[in-house]
Amino acid sequence: MSAKPPTSLDVAREAGVSQATVSYVLNNREDARVSDETRARVKEAANRLGYVPHAGARTLRTGHSRLVLVPLVNIPYGPLAVGLMEELDSELGRLGYTMIQYGARRLKGVAAARAWAELRPVAVLAPAERLTRQAVDVLHSAGIKAVIGIGVAGWPSEIVSTMTMDHEGIGATAAEHILARGSHTLTAIVPAEKGLRDMGLRRAAGVQRVAAAHRVPYNQVDLAFSESATAAWLDAWQAADTTGHARTKHGVFTYNDDYAMLLMAVLADNGISVPGDVAVVGCDDLPLAKLLRPRLTTVRLDVTSAPAMLAQTLDEIVRTGGTGQRLLALWPHALVERDST
Amino acid sequence: MSAKPPTSLDVAREAGVSQATVSYVLNNREDARVSDETRARVKEAANRLGYVPHAGARTLRTGHSRLVLVPLVNIPYGPLAVGLMEELDSELGRLGYTMIQYGARRLKGVAAARAWAELRPVAVLAPAERLTRQAVDVLHSAGIKAVIGIGVAGWPSEIVSTMTMDHEGIGATAAEHILARGSHTLTAIVPAEKGLRDMGLRRAAGVQRVAAAHRVPYNQVDLAFSESATAAWLDAWQAADTTGHARTKHGVFTYNDDYAMLLMAVLADNGISVPGDVAVVGCDDLPLAKLLRPRLTTVRLDVTSAPAMLAQTLDEIVRTGGTGQRLLALWPHALVERDST
Repeated sequence: MSAKPPTSLDVAREAGVSQATVSYVLNNREDARVSDETRARVKEAANRLGYVPHAGARTLRTGHSRLVLVPLVNIPYGPLAVGLMEELDSELGRLGYTMIQYGARRLKGVAAARAWAELRPVAVLAPAERLTRQAVDVLHSAGIKAVIGIGVAGWPSEIVSTMTMDHEGIGATAAEHILARGSHTLTAIVPAEKGLRDMGLRRAAGVQRVAAAHRVPYNQVDLAFSESATAAWLDAWQAADTTGHARTKHGVFTYNDDYAMLLMAVLADNGISVPGDVAVVGCDDLPLAKLLRPRLTTVRLDVTSAPAMLAQTLDEIVRTGGTGQRLLALWPHALVERDST
Repeated sequence: MSAKPPTSLDVAREAGVSQATVSYVLNNREDARVSDETRARVKEAANRLGYVPHAGARTLRTGHSRLVLVPLVNIPYGPLAVGLMEELDSELGRLGYTMIQYGARRLKGVAAARAWAELRPVAVLAPAERLTRQAVDVLHSAGIKAVIGIGVAGWPSEIVSTMTMDHEGIGATAAEHILARGSHTLTAIVPAEKGLRDMGLRRAAGVQRVAAAHRVPYNQVDLAFSESATAAWLDAWQAADTTGHARTKHGVFTYNDDYAMLLMAVLADNGISVPGDVAVVGCDDLPLAKLLRPRLTTVRLDVTSAPAMLAQTLDEIVRTGGTGQRLLALWPHALVERDST
């Protein structure tokens, strides 16, 4: 168990072939002319000795690996993000890449790039916010062929190709629906939670744009995820409600479904009717959306096509060496209408 | 950009030192006697050329890396699991390891072990269910020093040290509380969802044990996560309720908080009172637990100590080469009493 691990030379001796042949066979090089009989003998010898190729050695030899490094993002991972990662993993696997997720969330810029580069991946899919020009230079200098930014906060990177989300469009879609269902005011909740705030501001900007276009009052609420904060805001909001109409209906876009659940619980505790007094729209279409009473109207992000697209683009950049920046995609979204509006 | 990446030899020439000195400095070897002035010169040269050490090359030289490979588990990742991974990542980082998460969920046994071994990690933290004796041999033959099993379904591995969860204890804790609050029957929900079922059966076994000890009727319900399946089960359950008493109170342990929310929505739709007619206990203490009405009684897993303990054990096994199997921990859990019981 503590004996020295077998090398490809040991396999070569065991199989009675050259070390190069072992390498050809075990790395599935199809350009090499090796008979089926020899292939079988090499594989058998490798199995017997417990030898597996060394990804690091292969990297040194070929100049690059098939590893795709995905540094983890410093935001709370929801079920949506986890599902996306799983899909991306299989799509990259189909194209012959191995995706590894990597933490070290504390590192930024060049320090982060150095840590990523040490693993000599062939590609890096990193949060656009962590990619400075210097960092990208470090990655390319280390032989990494493709660097793609993931625009968490919704801004395309000015340095590399970015895949991002149309946060403003999400807010606007929710707001248009709220107005169509008869609300006289628009409110956007922006999570106080670090890591969500930037996205929240973008979504709120979309709500504000629609409010301005329709000339209805607009509020932005910075809200911590707690019942007491929500109750305090509700008190203040009711005190400040000077619209005068007895039957003014308010519309709130809650950033996501979790905040919608929070708001609806506090509204119910205060005897405020949803959707009679307040219309509520969430985002994500989590399983809980259908379990709320009234059932939650929400914005659903269609992420089904994103992983395959991302994997193909990455492969294209690796093969062609394409650089420069472009916007890869704005994931489509759609309103799921239920009973809270 | 497509120029050949700089090597440590380039750095050595640039700094006017030997290649060994470059290696000492950039890999932070403290045993080497290199002056501060030389260290600074080497680092400056590396920065200028954009050179970063190659983790794979270091592995070849030292025989092992500082990588800890965590193959991803084939279960739906909840916020709890994601939080755990983040903590483990920082704990390992503190001890000088780099944790990488790795997909390839389709692979099992020896095939999985080979894929993991190619990256030459120093340690592997894998689902105990995927570790066969042969697979562990492959890992050790490839020079991996520590293999630790994570017992997702709650069984300690017979091959390697395992960290696991006391699922039966969780079910028993919930059941004891339900009976203490006056229920006359006990029901355990077992998720039909693949990947959760094994854990559900273990938790249900704990509920059944308590039911037997107290001589109260026990039901196990295999339930898909859908309102229609839950409503159908509720109909059947009510039809079969032959306890006769008008005021029989039933107690249900729902496996987790998501299933509790599902059950409570369907009970409310059918005019069944919680906790008057049915007491409900979840597990996980997700943020939603406090937002349900009535607020959900649940079992909270105390995972705060687990990541540090796991990282320290791993480091110990890497340093001392300890093998053999032992049970590392049963994470403590505690009941959080709210209004649903």
